[in-house]
Amino acid sequence: MRAGSPAGPERRGKPPAKERGAAPGATWLYGRHAVAAALANPSRRIRRIVTLRELEAELAPLLAAARADLPAAPEFLDRRALALLLPEDAVHQGIAASVDPLPRRELDDIIAALPEDAAPAIVVVLDQVSDPHNVGAILRSAAAFAALAVVVPEHGSPPVTGVLAKAASGALETVPLIRAGNLARALERLKQSGFWCIGLEEGAAQSLAALDLPQRCALVLGAEGGGLRRLTRERCDFLVRLAAGSLNVSNAAAVALYAIGAAGKKP
Amino acid sequence: MRAGSPAGPERRGKPPAKERGAAPGATWLYGRHAVAAALANPSRRIRRIVTLRELEAELAPLLAAARADLPAAPEFLDRRALALLLPEDAVHQGIAASVDPLPRRELDDIIAALPEDAAPAIVVVLDQVSDPHNVGAILRSAAAFAALAVVVPEHGSPPVTGVLAKAASGALETVPLIRAGNLARALERLKQSGFWCIGLEEGAAQSLAALDLPQRCALVLGAEGGGLRRLTRERCDFLVRLAAGSLNVSNAAAVALYAIGAAGKKP
Repeated sequence: MRAGSPAGPERRGKPPAKERGAAPGATWLYGRHAVAAALANPSRRIRRIVTLRELEAELAPLLAAARADLPAAPEFLDRRALALLLPEDAVHQGIAASVDPLPRRELDDIIAALPEDAAPAIVVVLDQVSDPHNVGAILRSAAAFAALAVVVPEHGSPPVTGVLAKAASGALETVPLIRAGNLARALERLKQSGFWCIGLEEGAAQSLAALDLPQRCALVLGAEGGGLRRLTRERCDFLVRLAAGSLNVSNAAAVALYAIGAAGKKP
Repeated sequence: MRAGSPAGPERRGKPPAKERGAAPGATWLYGRHAVAAALANPSRRIRRIVTLRELEAELAPLLAAARADLPAAPEFLDRRALALLLPEDAVHQGIAASVDPLPRRELDDIIAALPEDAAPAIVVVLDQVSDPHNVGAILRSAAAFAALAVVVPEHGSPPVTGVLAKAASGALETVPLIRAGNLARALERLKQSGFWCIGLEEGAAQSLAALDLPQRCALVLGAEGGGLRRLTRERCDFLVRLAAGSLNVSNAAAVALYAIGAAGKKP
């Protein structure tokens, strides 16, 4: 118990994703999908696995399916001990893993591994989307609709925390989250590689449905509320709307990914 | 400052949406879109309007656009006083309103006001979606894609709080949120009125895109993780999937609303 720590509105000054029990450089991932995917990902270094003692039988299949090269055996804790390791209000579903960050991925890696010209390829680009729930949900949709990567600016994007990983529901392990030093330059690089940049903008004159979609699409979404920044907007080949009204940014990303995928399947 | 209140994991026992400064029966709405929409809604009884003194000039247009029959003038507070009225971590954007609940709406009201047979009509039905962010985002998408209502079960759905209203970004004032005592019966009532019930289910054999969509659709979505309950599932005329992988429930709702709308516009 941290009786001396401030409660009430003062708490807001605290870094929201402060990891309490993690080793230096490590992050706690929690929630069953997020942890199961991390345990299955050979690129992910796992430091500790902690689970609720009372769920030992229920979680056994999840742990049994983990890859062979994990560190020490899972630790079984009671609710209080598990909660003390994790950020406040973490919806942990009885399991957490302390993990190292994934190896850094670069946009050039994605471009080098592109399928042949005729195959559809989608990359999602987020301009200043700051809510980790939204970035996580967008990773999840990117996985569901087979996008190749999600690109965010190095600055102004949320760090990879348990909240982001939980919202991604495992997709953090399968969809590369690329941090670009300069987003405008990343868009130029994509354009050089045959991608058309499609910016989503409320109230744009053209609807996405009316667009004759190219095979390689970079789907560009702006900040909640603020939309696309000028330098980003200017690099878009098209600006399109999805609906008559406004959508949450992760909802907009999901709709656009679906629409592009559905258009790709038309005869 | 509430130095004596518990911090750390113990805080989790507290009802999350406890309204600290609201009058009995009233709720604090906050955030600019949510408050502006409430101030524009003639069915919404407003008790108090509080704003940040330092944003007086910036918020003046929002307040000036409010309808004429508001109660007393807005109160201008400093950050600390405003934060003390609202739930912890409320993203208030400098404005909040204490409001009475909207008059209760019934499914029969929606059915009685249906457009003529040939016009498309969509209702969204949520089976045990418990996260207020998701319910709010679904209301927002329902507004953007002109759905007639969002129906939730009386029990097992989140109450209308500032969190839900903020996520709805004003749509709480325009899209009826209907609480049905018995969801299975509500689905029967919709079917009697010419709606086809389309359940969304991960891994369903049929995709929504392959469905020849009827004019009146009830789009049925299940709990995060748990999916549709048996009694709900059995009442669906179709079970369809949206993507190869899994989506957040609000993302799934947005995609399905888009897909139904886009299909309705085909020649």
